Amino acid sequence: MKINKYPDKNTWSELIKRPVLKREKLTEIIFDIFKNVEENGDQALIDFNKKFDNAEVKNIQVSEEEIENAESIISDELKLAIQQAKDNITKFHASQIVEIEKIETTKGVVCWRENRAIEKVGIYIPGGTAPLFSTVLMLAIPAQLAGCKEIILCTPPDKNGNINPAILYTAKLCGVTKIFKTGGAQAIAAMTFGTESIPKVYKIFGPGNQYVVAAKEYCQKFGVAIDMPAGPSEVLVIADENAIPEFCAADLLSQTEHGSDSQVIFISTNEKIFNQTIKETENQLKELPRNELAKESLKNSHFILLSTIDEALEFSNLYAPEHLILALEDFEKYIPKIQNAGSVFLGNYSCESAGDYASGTNHTLPTNGFAKNYSGVSLDSFVKKITFQNLSEEGLQNLGETIEIMAEAEGLFAHKNAVTIRLNKENERI
Amino acid sequence: MKINKYPDKNTWSELIKRPVLKREKLTEIIFDIFKNVEENGDQALIDFNKKFDNAEVKNIQVSEEEIENAESIISDELKLAIQQAKDNITKFHASQIVEIEKIETTKGVVCWRENRAIEKVGIYIPGGTAPLFSTVLMLAIPAQLAGCKEIILCTPPDKNGNINPAILYTAKLCGVTKIFKTGGAQAIAAMTFGTESIPKVYKIFGPGNQYVVAAKEYCQKFGVAIDMPAGPSEVLVIADENAIPEFCAADLLSQTEHGSDSQVIFISTNEKIFNQTIKETENQLKELPRNELAKESLKNSHFILLSTIDEALEFSNLYAPEHLILALEDFEKYIPKIQNAGSVFLGNYSCESAGDYASGTNHTLPTNGFAKNYSGVSLDSFVKKITFQNLSEEGLQNLGETIEIMAEAEGLFAHKNAVTIRLNKENERI
Repeated sequence: MKINKYPDKNTWSELIKRPVLKREKLTEIIFDIFKNVEENGDQALIDFNKKFDNAEVKNIQVSEEEIENAESIISDELKLAIQQAKDNITKFHASQIVEIEKIETTKGVVCWRENRAIEKVGIYIPGGTAPLFSTVLMLAIPAQLAGCKEIILCTPPDKNGNINPAILYTAKLCGVTKIFKTGGAQAIAAMTFGTESIPKVYKIFGPGNQYVVAAKEYCQKFGVAIDMPAGPSEVLVIADENAIPEFCAADLLSQTEHGSDSQVIFISTNEKIFNQTIKETENQLKELPRNELAKESLKNSHFILLSTIDEALEFSNLYAPEHLILALEDFEKYIPKIQNAGSVFLGNYSCESAGDYASGTNHTLPTNGFAKNYSGVSLDSFVKKITFQNLSEEGLQNLGETIEIMAEAEGLFAHKNAVTIRLNKENERI
Repeated sequence: MKINKYPDKNTWSELIKRPVLKREKLTEIIFDIFKNVEENGDQALIDFNKKFDNAEVKNIQVSEEEIENAESIISDELKLAIQQAKDNITKFHASQIVEIEKIETTKGVVCWRENRAIEKVGIYIPGGTAPLFSTVLMLAIPAQLAGCKEIILCTPPDKNGNINPAILYTAKLCGVTKIFKTGGAQAIAAMTFGTESIPKVYKIFGPGNQYVVAAKEYCQKFGVAIDMPAGPSEVLVIADENAIPEFCAADLLSQTEHGSDSQVIFISTNEKIFNQTIKETENQLKELPRNELAKESLKNSHFILLSTIDEALEFSNLYAPEHLILALEDFEKYIPKIQNAGSVFLGNYSCESAGDYASGTNHTLPTNGFAKNYSGVSLDSFVKKITFQNLSEEGLQNLGETIEIMAEAEGLFAHKNAVTIRLNKENERI
């Protein structure tokens, strides 16, 4: 860990730097994978399963039987936990549904917006050691609430050609329509072009390794939308004299176990809390099972001592963290000062894991500084907002001249004529 | 124009095809322009002004004096028209401001979202024959409403080094903070990297030619967000037996004058209206000043006769038009069937130009089929929605076990520990 006591503001631009991701070499690999999947469909996916995941898979699509089996494997305890998380996530995302509000901007001119679900969406869930069924909740629940007709899920199989039962169980529970055994860039390619088994989708969601990230960047060239650009996960904790060092340390460490490139920043205005948190972090680290990743990631972490909370927030807004924890007594008064952040956790009992799993907010958030210009996933991510307008004859009378003058000033005479021809028709009748 | 009477559904996939945009050759040009601007800043922009716009410009930034002059040049008539449009656009976009709603998902667990403006945004306005001051309204008004601190505008100068006064006047009126004389890909590069004069921005909005479109695609590699991917403008009109052929023809032609690659589709279920609209289109075309572009674009237009309005809407949803005009008597009942469209105009008096200029809706809309997965520009385009959560001690008691179980099932033990350590602390005290 890097300790910085009262660093000069000139050095902040160094402190907020993320690790640079080198992606140049990936371009060709991704291009080849996309070409292969576009040309060979399911067979390409079966071959990639063998090559990358060492798995023999006959049917790319998960069968009903496999899903039923998964249900019988999952413990009742885990089912109850998933259900409580689902209820909260549903409640929070359902609150984002907006009533249609018709606005009469000028007498006889009525404008409004209506949501329409994106018809076909794809969810990518990474494989590896952690079976991220929580991400299934975070993406499938708003997709179903939005009314997406086709909600497909791709995830790589294990060596035996199976998918983790918690992922299957959660997917079924949240209305995923089809599940496929394919991972990596090839899964993104399959959802981009469609194959014999996998339907083409209009938008792709979900986290992944560098190949998946590069593939999600590339798939946009084919008209597919994505949730947001990606980078390693990160947390910034701001602690005052009333913060509890054990809690702060636990929050920092929970971020580090995501991967060796995870970013962790701790800021305090109180030197005692600052030193105790450093000590606590070192102590708790020893107890952790996923110790190696955490150790690696802690090396790049910054522990920063600053003079005031206002300064800490200034730093945080520059950094634009994915997760921001305010371990502050009077957090309320600092909320208006937060400008750039993905999700904010307030007070000593709002740990990041609450939002990661079960409080109701979405855990798919902008990283890598993208909290400056992107929002996290919400119900809005699964809909288009279509504008509607209805002008009565009176409405066009009231607005027509304005349109004519503006269209003429822009030199667009056919635009003007579309109004003139209507106004003349009215006058004829009068 | 291409006439299709009762085309077989098998042929629809041909009919909905857009002209293919060839962009491969642009990659190198864009790369070089970005590199030049990154390295040479303002000087590169001054050189490009000379090279591409044949303009000698000493100061890239428009002066206060130039803006004041513009105000004195604009006619009072145009000022009044711009003001009415501004009022309507403001009214409609202000209605999109959502009140903060705190949701208690579990007792003691409170979650909500708050909007924060994207701090720095850039607006690109193309040069050329049509001075698109209406686009300034559509982008600067929601930016100002959202609370963006820095709203800059780039647009190419004319041969005398000047900017159209209507653009300057509108920009000033709508709170644009700085205006710069630079166009094309180099303007996008300048807003991406920043130069001596031009501030770096977090998100870039606005239309442009193929170079601008390619530059907006490229700038995302540097962490800049854009409004949406682009393509030629398009309209689809559906007309029943009560439609008025002169109106339909005028709407179709107003689309064609945007450019030779504009897309126009007319669908009717009534053969008389169908034939009359074709005739009217040919007649009105002759009267148009921007005749050449319209003629060219009409060549690729489709006039399609179908049996039912339901079929017409099925076709429209497949095509996903930027603008959809329902010249139907009973349009109300068809609204729920609209799935993919940018903006919808209802009835015989809701011409597209109303939305283009002054009704209040935004005219920056998804084209090229992107209405399947993107929304048009709205207030949301200028904000990030940050999620907040506050768990009381009781809240964590109520949710803690669920988080612990889920974190453990995902193998994320530090995530679990962040809860356990807090629950233990509570128990100690009790």
